[in-house]
Amino acid sequence: MPSHVRIVEVGPRDGLQNEKTDIGTAAKIELIDRLSRTGLASIEATAFVSPKWVPQMADAAQVLAGITRAPGISYPVLVPNEQGYERARAAGAQEVAVFTAASEAFNLKNTNAGINESLQRFTPVLERAKIDGVRVRGYVSTVLGCPYQGDVPLNDVVRVAKALHAMGCYEISLGDTIGVGTPAKARAMLQAVATEVPMAALAIHFHDTYGQALANVLTCLEEGVAVVDSAVSGAGGCPYAKGASGNVASEDVVYMLHGLGIHTGIDLPLLAETGRWLAGLLGRDTGSKVGRALGAA
Amino acid sequence: MPSHVRIVEVGPRDGLQNEKTDIGTAAKIELIDRLSRTGLASIEATAFVSPKWVPQMADAAQVLAGITRAPGISYPVLVPNEQGYERARAAGAQEVAVFTAASEAFNLKNTNAGINESLQRFTPVLERAKIDGVRVRGYVSTVLGCPYQGDVPLNDVVRVAKALHAMGCYEISLGDTIGVGTPAKARAMLQAVATEVPMAALAIHFHDTYGQALANVLTCLEEGVAVVDSAVSGAGGCPYAKGASGNVASEDVVYMLHGLGIHTGIDLPLLAETGRWLAGLLGRDTGSKVGRALGAA
Repeated sequence: MPSHVRIVEVGPRDGLQNEKTDIGTAAKIELIDRLSRTGLASIEATAFVSPKWVPQMADAAQVLAGITRAPGISYPVLVPNEQGYERARAAGAQEVAVFTAASEAFNLKNTNAGINESLQRFTPVLERAKIDGVRVRGYVSTVLGCPYQGDVPLNDVVRVAKALHAMGCYEISLGDTIGVGTPAKARAMLQAVATEVPMAALAIHFHDTYGQALANVLTCLEEGVAVVDSAVSGAGGCPYAKGASGNVASEDVVYMLHGLGIHTGIDLPLLAETGRWLAGLLGRDTGSKVGRALGAA
Repeated sequence: MPSHVRIVEVGPRDGLQNEKTDIGTAAKIELIDRLSRTGLASIEATAFVSPKWVPQMADAAQVLAGITRAPGISYPVLVPNEQGYERARAAGAQEVAVFTAASEAFNLKNTNAGINESLQRFTPVLERAKIDGVRVRGYVSTVLGCPYQGDVPLNDVVRVAKALHAMGCYEISLGDTIGVGTPAKARAMLQAVATEVPMAALAIHFHDTYGQALANVLTCLEEGVAVVDSAVSGAGGCPYAKGASGNVASEDVVYMLHGLGIHTGIDLPLLAETGRWLAGLLGRDTGSKVGRALGAA
C-alpha cells in the first residue's frame, strides 16, 4: 500500500452538482476556503459547463474569482470542451478536468455524443492546455457499470483511460458512477487499466450508492493506487437512484487511511467539522459516518 | 476467501436493543418471521437479560414463543448467566450466547464484573448447555477499542476468546463494539486470535460507527473468516456516540459477498425489503445503502 495518498476533494463540484439544495455562491466560496485550511492538496472547485444543463454550476466564474487560493493547493475545474476551457481560463483556472464515460450508452445519454466524439472534443483542449501550461485531469465514468447498458466491458474502460492518458491527461480518475462495484470487480478493473496506464497516473472515484465504496478503495490501495477522489460530507447523490448516497465521504476515507498508517496531510477533525457545516447548509445530516461520530462525541 | 459465508443476523437483538423506538412484541415476532423467509441460517432472536437494565428485551419469552421456527434456522438468544439460561430454556431456546468484553474497564462498567468473574458465571451455563445439547456462542466485545480505556491489548482479546472457546463455545464472535477499527488493525487482531482459536470457530462483528465496517469485513474474509454478524437495516446505534450508526447492515454485507462470488443463500431483495419495513417501524430511513438504492430503483 502507498505510504501517502492524495485526496482529490470533489464535494464542491461532483457533490454540489448532485444536491437538490443550492447553497449559493457565497457558501460555495466559503466551503472551498474552509477545505483549503484542512490540508487538502486538490479541491475540484466547479464546472464550466452549460448553465442550461447544469444550473447548479452557473456561477463557476464567480466561485473561482471568489476563493482564496492557498499555495500548494490545486483547484481543478471541469470543462466539457474548448468553449468551457476558454471560460475556465478567462476565470483564472490553472488546472482543468475533462470527462467521458466508458459506456457508449451513458455517454450518448449524458453528452449527446459518442465516446470517440467526446475524445475528439478534448483534443483542442489538451493542445491549448499544453501551450498554456495547464494540467488536465481525465475522468472515466461508469467503469464498473452503467445505468443504461448494465455491464461495461473492461476493454472499453482500458481503451478510454489509455486514450485520455495518450492525449496528455496527467491523471486518469476511474469512476464507479452508480456505485454498483464490489472489491473483486474494482481490483480486476484497476489491474486491467494499469496494464496500459502507469498506476502512478491513476486515481479512483467511488460512489457509495450500495455502501461498497470504502471496501473498494481499500482493494485499490492494495493494488498500489495512491490518489482517491471523495467528497466532504458524502455530498452528492445518484441521479439514477433518487435518495441514494453520493460520493464516498472524504472523512471516512481519511479515517481509514490514517488507521492504515497512510499519510494524507489532512486535519480530520477540521474536515469533519466542515462536512457537518456543509450538511447544515444542505438541510440534512452529514453523509459521513466519521463526521457523525466525531460530532456526537 | 471462503466460498460460502454464514450471516448471523443480529438485528432483532443487538439492533433493537440499541434503538430508541420500541417496535413492540408483535412487530419483533413479525421481523424474525420475515427474516426467516430470506434464507438466513442464524437469527439472534432476543436476550434473557434483566428487564431492569435492558427494558427493550423484557418480552424475550413472548418473542421466542411467538416466532415460527423454520427448519434449518438457528435462533440463538443472549444469556448473561445461569439464571438467564434457565429462563431461556424454559422459553424453548435451543441455542444461547454469552458475552464478555476484552476490555476490563468496559466489562466492569457494563456488567459490574471483571472479565474473570464474567467467565466464571458462564461455567455453569456451559456445563448445563452441554448436558442439554444446547449450542453456546461466545461474544467478545471491544476487540478494537474501548470507550473507557481506549486501546485494548491484543493479548487480552486472545485470552478472552481462547477462554470462551476452551469452555465449550462452538463459535467466538469478535466485536468492534464502538466501530473504531480499521482494516490493518482488524487483520492483526484476527490473526492474533486465530493463533489460539481455529479460524473455523471465529466470527466477526463490526459496528459501522466510523463507516469502516465493510472494509474491515473484507479484510477478515481475506484472512479466511466465514461467519459475519450484521443487522438488517443497520439497526442499532452506539450508546457511546449518540446519533452514530449501529451494526453494519446485513444488506450491504450480502451485496458485497455476492459481488465477490461468495454464496450466502440469502434473497437480497427480500432482505432489503424487510430492512425498509423495519426502518418504517423505527420511523427513519433504512440504515442500509443497498436497501435505499434498491428501494429507489
